[in-house]
Amino acid sequence: MPENKGRVLLAYSGGLDTSCILAWLIEEGYEVYAFMADVGQEEDYAAAEKKALKVGAKKFFLADLKREFVTELIYPAVQANCIYENVYLLGTSLARPVIARGMIEVADKEGCDYVSHGCTGKGNDQVRFELAFYGLKPDIKVIAPWRIPEFYNRFAGRQALLQYAAEQNIPVQQTVAKPWSTDENLFHISYEAGILEDPNVTPPNDMWKLTTAPEDAPTSPERIILEFQNGLPTKVIVPEQQKEYTDAVEIFSALNTLARKHGIGRIDIVENRFIGVKSRGCYESPGATILRVAHMDLEGLTLDRNVRALRDQFTTIALSRILYNGHYFSPEREFVTSSIPSSQRTVNGIVRLKLYKGNTIVEGRESSEGLYDAAQSSMDELGGFEPTDTTGFISIESIRLKKWAQSKAAKGQSGVTAKDVYGSS
Amino acid sequence: MPENKGRVLLAYSGGLDTSCILAWLIEEGYEVYAFMADVGQEEDYAAAEKKALKVGAKKFFLADLKREFVTELIYPAVQANCIYENVYLLGTSLARPVIARGMIEVADKEGCDYVSHGCTGKGNDQVRFELAFYGLKPDIKVIAPWRIPEFYNRFAGRQALLQYAAEQNIPVQQTVAKPWSTDENLFHISYEAGILEDPNVTPPNDMWKLTTAPEDAPTSPERIILEFQNGLPTKVIVPEQQKEYTDAVEIFSALNTLARKHGIGRIDIVENRFIGVKSRGCYESPGATILRVAHMDLEGLTLDRNVRALRDQFTTIALSRILYNGHYFSPEREFVTSSIPSSQRTVNGIVRLKLYKGNTIVEGRESSEGLYDAAQSSMDELGGFEPTDTTGFISIESIRLKKWAQSKAAKGQSGVTAKDVYGSS
Amino acid sequence: MPENKGRVLLAYSGGLDTSCILAWLIEEGYEVYAFMADVGQEEDYAAAEKKALKVGAKKFFLADLKREFVTELIYPAVQANCIYENVYLLGTSLARPVIARGMIEVADKEGCDYVSHGCTGKGNDQVRFELAFYGLKPDIKVIAPWRIPEFYNRFAGRQALLQYAAEQNIPVQQTVAKPWSTDENLFHISYEAGILEDPNVTPPNDMWKLTTAPEDAPTSPERIILEFQNGLPTKVIVPEQQKEYTDAVEIFSALNTLARKHGIGRIDIVENRFIGVKSRGCYESPGATILRVAHMDLEGLTLDRNVRALRDQFTTIALSRILYNGHYFSPEREFVTSSIPSSQRTVNGIVRLKLYKGNTIVEGRESSEGLYDAAQSSMDELGGFEPTDTTGFISIESIRLKKWAQSKAAKGQSGVTAKDVYGSS
Amino acid sequence: MPENKGRVLLAYSGGLDTSCILAWLIEEGYEVYAFMADVGQEEDYAAAEKKALKVGAKKFFLADLKREFVTELIYPAVQANCIYENVYLLGTSLARPVIARGMIEVADKEGCDYVSHGCTGKGNDQVRFELAFYGLKPDIKVIAPWRIPEFYNRFAGRQALLQYAAEQNIPVQQTVAKPWSTDENLFHISYEAGILEDPNVTPPNDMWKLTTAPEDAPTSPERIILEFQNGLPTKVIVPEQQKEYTDAVEIFSALNTLARKHGIGRIDIVENRFIGVKSRGCYESPGATILRVAHMDLEGLTLDRNVRALRDQFTTIALSRILYNGHYFSPEREFVTSSIPSSQRTVNGIVRLKLYKGNTIVEGRESSEGLYDAAQSSMDELGGFEPTDTTGFISIESIRLKKWAQSKAAKGQSGVTAKDVYGSS
Repeated sequence: MPENKGRVLLAYSGGLDTSCILAWLIEEGYEVYAFMADVGQEEDYAAAEKKALKVGAKKFFLADLKREFVTELIYPAVQANCIYENVYLLGTSLARPVIARGMIEVADKEGCDYVSHGCTGKGNDQVRFELAFYGLKPDIKVIAPWRIPEFYNRFAGRQALLQYAAEQNIPVQQTVAKPWSTDENLFHISYEAGILEDPNVTPPNDMWKLTTAPEDAPTSPERIILEFQNGLPTKVIVPEQQKEYTDAVEIFSALNTLARKHGIGRIDIVENRFIGVKSRGCYESPGATILRVAHMDLEGLTLDRNVRALRDQFTTIALSRILYNGHYFSPEREFVTSSIPSSQRTVNGIVRLKLYKGNTIVEGRESSEGLYDAAQSSMDELGGFEPTDTTGFISIESIRLKKWAQSKAAKGQSGVTAKDVYGSS
Repeated sequence: MPENKGRVLLAYSGGLDTSCILAWLIEEGYEVYAFMADVGQEEDYAAAEKKALKVGAKKFFLADLKREFVTELIYPAVQANCIYENVYLLGTSLARPVIARGMIEVADKEGCDYVSHGCTGKGNDQVRFELAFYGLKPDIKVIAPWRIPEFYNRFAGRQALLQYAAEQNIPVQQTVAKPWSTDENLFHISYEAGILEDPNVTPPNDMWKLTTAPEDAPTSPERIILEFQNGLPTKVIVPEQQKEYTDAVEIFSALNTLARKHGIGRIDIVENRFIGVKSRGCYESPGATILRVAHMDLEGLTLDRNVRALRDQFTTIALSRILYNGHYFSPEREFVTSSIPSSQRTVNGIVRLKLYKGNTIVEGRESSEGLYDAAQSSMDELGGFEPTDTTGFISIESIRLKKWAQSKAAKGQSGVTAKDVYGSS
Repeated sequence: MPENKGRVLLAYSGGLDTSCILAWLIEEGYEVYAFMADVGQEEDYAAAEKKALKVGAKKFFLADLKREFVTELIYPAVQANCIYENVYLLGTSLARPVIARGMIEVADKEGCDYVSHGCTGKGNDQVRFELAFYGLKPDIKVIAPWRIPEFYNRFAGRQALLQYAAEQNIPVQQTVAKPWSTDENLFHISYEAGILEDPNVTPPNDMWKLTTAPEDAPTSPERIILEFQNGLPTKVIVPEQQKEYTDAVEIFSALNTLARKHGIGRIDIVENRFIGVKSRGCYESPGATILRVAHMDLEGLTLDRNVRALRDQFTTIALSRILYNGHYFSPEREFVTSSIPSSQRTVNGIVRLKLYKGNTIVEGRESSEGLYDAAQSSMDELGGFEPTDTTGFISIESIRLKKWAQSKAAKGQSGVTAKDVYGSS
Repeated sequence: MPENKGRVLLAYSGGLDTSCILAWLIEEGYEVYAFMADVGQEEDYAAAEKKALKVGAKKFFLADLKREFVTELIYPAVQANCIYENVYLLGTSLARPVIARGMIEVADKEGCDYVSHGCTGKGNDQVRFELAFYGLKPDIKVIAPWRIPEFYNRFAGRQALLQYAAEQNIPVQQTVAKPWSTDENLFHISYEAGILEDPNVTPPNDMWKLTTAPEDAPTSPERIILEFQNGLPTKVIVPEQQKEYTDAVEIFSALNTLARKHGIGRIDIVENRFIGVKSRGCYESPGATILRVAHMDLEGLTLDRNVRALRDQFTTIALSRILYNGHYFSPEREFVTSSIPSSQRTVNGIVRLKLYKGNTIVEGRESSEGLYDAAQSSMDELGGFEPTDTTGFISIESIRLKKWAQSKAAKGQSGVTAKDVYGSS
């Protein structure tokens, strides 16, 4: 009988790794409570609960965090068009803070001395979890078995885990693991490791779980309409279904269903992890991809140019990096997000989209904001515009450039060099 | 017989507008030389030359600027992943500087006192042309008829132009104009004005010129391979054709042909012009779209994380804005582009792509640069990695966040609020 | 008797220029109301009122805008450490928006069709005034006589103005102008033009108005204490005077008096105007200089590193440029300032300063915020710090750099070259 | 007799810490070579060499790195106006890369398996040294005794070191240490730790070593002239001495001497270390402070506005952070510095300075670059400027703001609120 080292709240997934960790923590002398978060992943929560208790968890907690995941994490990221390294929509990064907060809440209430997780020692998620824990409860203690030599040396390789599971009577569903790892939630699924570690290996067709292959998607396009208020989706109209969705979680689910059907939202990249290692990841972010296209398009119609430029260069980039690196519970995240509402006040209107075999095509957009003025931009009428004003504008804009060109010319530096020009007269 | 006011070099397109401007300039007392640039647009140059001389141009110049367009303008933009407002690949912006330089060169050689163009007074291109003129030759004088009241009041509307053309014996091919304006070059075609001024009008199918509609594209995907050296495309392999392209202009043309076939590169946006007016534009940038996807993907494999982040936030954004606003011949453009080579030294390797109905899908990538290390990133082996190091890393990273959280807690501000958590034991 | 062209509200200074403009506007057929703003400049307002009415103004308005100048304009600039081109504290830029708003308010109430000002056609202030007018009341009409050829050609040179003043019975106090122009308010005074146009001319001693020369300042230093809450000064303690100041306007005035005495706040620069012209300006910003030193110092003690870095690169630079270019009443200004409060929540505490002959020297600072931890940073005790953590931190930080160095070495590129090293053994 | 664990190159200072480390490394079984860098600090190198060899070093190396310190490290930082957190000129950060490179060069030549240093486990310098080592020679092994528990636990506190020194026959000059730590080089000296750990303690007068107190500086100002080419100082003229300095190292020394005399270059701050700990530091950067003032001033006269703005926001900030955090040997440093030459091509001319009791006052500047044009900026003449152009410029600039204001008005949001305005008529 081991000594009682204290109470641990373990982020439990129901899989082989965290089940073994659960057993090992008990073996090490801890009392273990198991915690699962429902952030929209497909999961047999009842089976997981049963399994956790069977393996030895004293208590099991299931937190439905879908709504706060959507409204607190996903929404600001949508408003700010967050993206990491031009491609990755941050699906896993967005879920970690709500899960970590859910855990700290239970750990607080239940008097847990420790929190624990099954993340590997090379990835981003350990960092995201732990920085979130510390940012919420700076005196919490963390047990990360995959960074503890006694654990990772003992359980090097899946065989060692399977053997331990057998010894501990831990039920195992698959003795052969999929040749990649996944993380799934309402926003996306990620695939990494295993055969994907060769960046030149094309992911097999049967890997992709949340979307139809574009080749297998319907041969007819489907039209939908998205409505935004303050940069947030407030309605999805799906004429084919004769349906409208207005609830935040339902909007997301509906967009996921539509994108899944039409093969939208797959990416395959090599990214740079926070710890400085390059890593290959494949992701499906179905509904989020549609939402991003629509939101950015509506901003074209409704957002002031200079606000957009400043937001793109700072808010978008800063918030994306903060989310990726796990700095959600930080003063800089509060600072960066504090400016988002001001940027989205005018982002009101609708966007009409065509979904077709991997493509999200904007077919039109409309708003009553009034920043777009067809008469003003028209090439067919003056619309109150004085063309002579532009002459003054260009003249002033050229002052600085002329001075520079004169200065270069005075030094004998010319911008013009001989080109192939053929003349006739 | 009007007085001789001097010699004008006119940017001539062969169309109704610039033909009327040509005639009007002569009427106003100028001697006019006509200038056309071949930047890859589909054009009957011989017919245009004939027409210009017939209308009264004293000389006609045709400059083949395709190669310098590709190597001097497009290439740095590809290396820097330039994009305006997240969507527009800057096709027109990229061509203006080489055209303007071609004109200044001819104006210099031929002793022209003026340069002239047919751009409207509300658009970006007048600014791009004129700032380029002034940045190359600060004492050049510019005649912009669409900003001269005597001109734009006299020729308000197409009918007035048609009537003037009839009077001046200017041959007119289409008495009914297309309900939009276009600008075409090797990189792209743009559509704006006319029916597109309502941002909620879906562009008609027959507008799109450079690409097949995704719906009409082949039902089978096609695979190609792109090779890059220092971030520039050096080879396109098209297995279906059993062909390879290695010349800069041919690479671009080959990618255009492939993208056209597979319906790749259409966009439809509302953008913010330099003069502060919102404007709706549709664009086809076929080959450029493929190139962008491939280049960004290879950067994932081969570019250092911090270089990428700095380049994205600084070079990409600054250069895109400089190009869009017509500041190519400026000290800030020289400053910004001077850092590009250093950012692309490691961007060497190949990218394998699948083209299918509007989609450019990365299927794999390879490089000998060695910044990606499968063993290091592997979840299955340590690969020289010490997991305990990450504990130290997280510990140091959390110092600042813990202090902040303690400070908040001392003020009674908690980051954790009640959530829906259901527990069992 | 001229026709009645409408009612104009004129920004009136009481000087020769705006008095002549007043008379000229009447001559041109306008009914003129005169407007003066008290933003803390030294001025005989009663005399100016009398003069305006004598010259022919139908009404005279004096708006005391000192408090809103301090609390609405200066305070956010202090919180964000605003500065233009590393040196200029933006004193004139900060005053223009409150003056413009005061004018629009009166123009609205009094049914004025126009606003007018006496700014020259080459400067920043015309832009700042007019963009503020348009941002507040987009349909206001502006009369800028110094940009109207009939005016500026007629009144080219001071002699023409003096002659007109004589004709119009406008009282003139100085027939010989100072050889520079000034703009003064509670925050600063600017000097430009005249003899200062040669950037190599040292400003004469008698030009400086708001500060003692450092050479003439007291030979003994003086100590003061500044207290901040949320990044704003809430108290100035002046032990020598046995006084404390807590009112916003009084704090500013007290700091001005102290800085004046000790020769603090002079600068002399060549700056870049919004219109692209380089211009030489000298400025005295006495109290503002002390405030800036103290605020930045306290941020060192109390502001999170990452918030500070993001704020410096984004908020400070963006807001400074917005203010300088006259974009105060704009969506981007609202966007940028919306993030300031979040950045200043922890900037609470006191700073102890020594003022001495042009120097503002920090002698110490204190705060109860708790982000600084003497034990943690101590070199003499561990203070809960695990030095081994840093080993992990450095190890992780070096992953990326080692990969890069290996990649360079594989290409035969070495970072080490021969240096002069002498060895003994 | 301990086993031979290999050869170590130790960064040796001659002080108590590194002498004890030298002895301890020998005790631990290493063969130790001692390395000293001359980066301009005041030091008895001969005594240090003698001491190192006496304590047991097998070889001693002295590298004179002053010139490369100035030309390779300091110069780009001067050109880019590098500064950390608005105040710190990076003196220590700049020296570390050249010292580390000197060590790696010797380690390479002499076949050392390890490098070692005496930096503490909480500071920046350990990170700067080690990241530099790894960036130059990724397989080098580092021994950092102050992060090795057996060392830091054994030698906790100065007494333990003194006792060990006595046991090991290590000569000790001061048995009572100064109540702060210092790091000195040609650029600056830093003071931290000890009594300075209370940020509210005013540094004692006798701490400051490189500068006279402003109170004690001469009562008469001294004028000097600095000449720059491409943003680098090429000549210092000191009329009082009837001397000119043109050699890079001599220029720096001369400026140090002048600044020392006139009390220029002291700062006292709380800064944020790379590891996230706040730390109080005092610094004297005498010559560097003069150089910075002069360089920035000349940029006002000679550098294009947009280049300056981009450089300030990116190059300056990025390079300062890179230097501070010890990322000098990195791809991002190469990227960032690659753009500096392009930014400095026009920074040619002279600056006239007055030095007086802590103040560096610009009295004038001159350049033949021609970007400044007195006639153009003049308020007294048009100088080729058309004031009507500005009307067009403002009109175009206001388009966007008017639209925004109209949009706000349409929603019933007004920018104007009631203020205290008193009117008379």
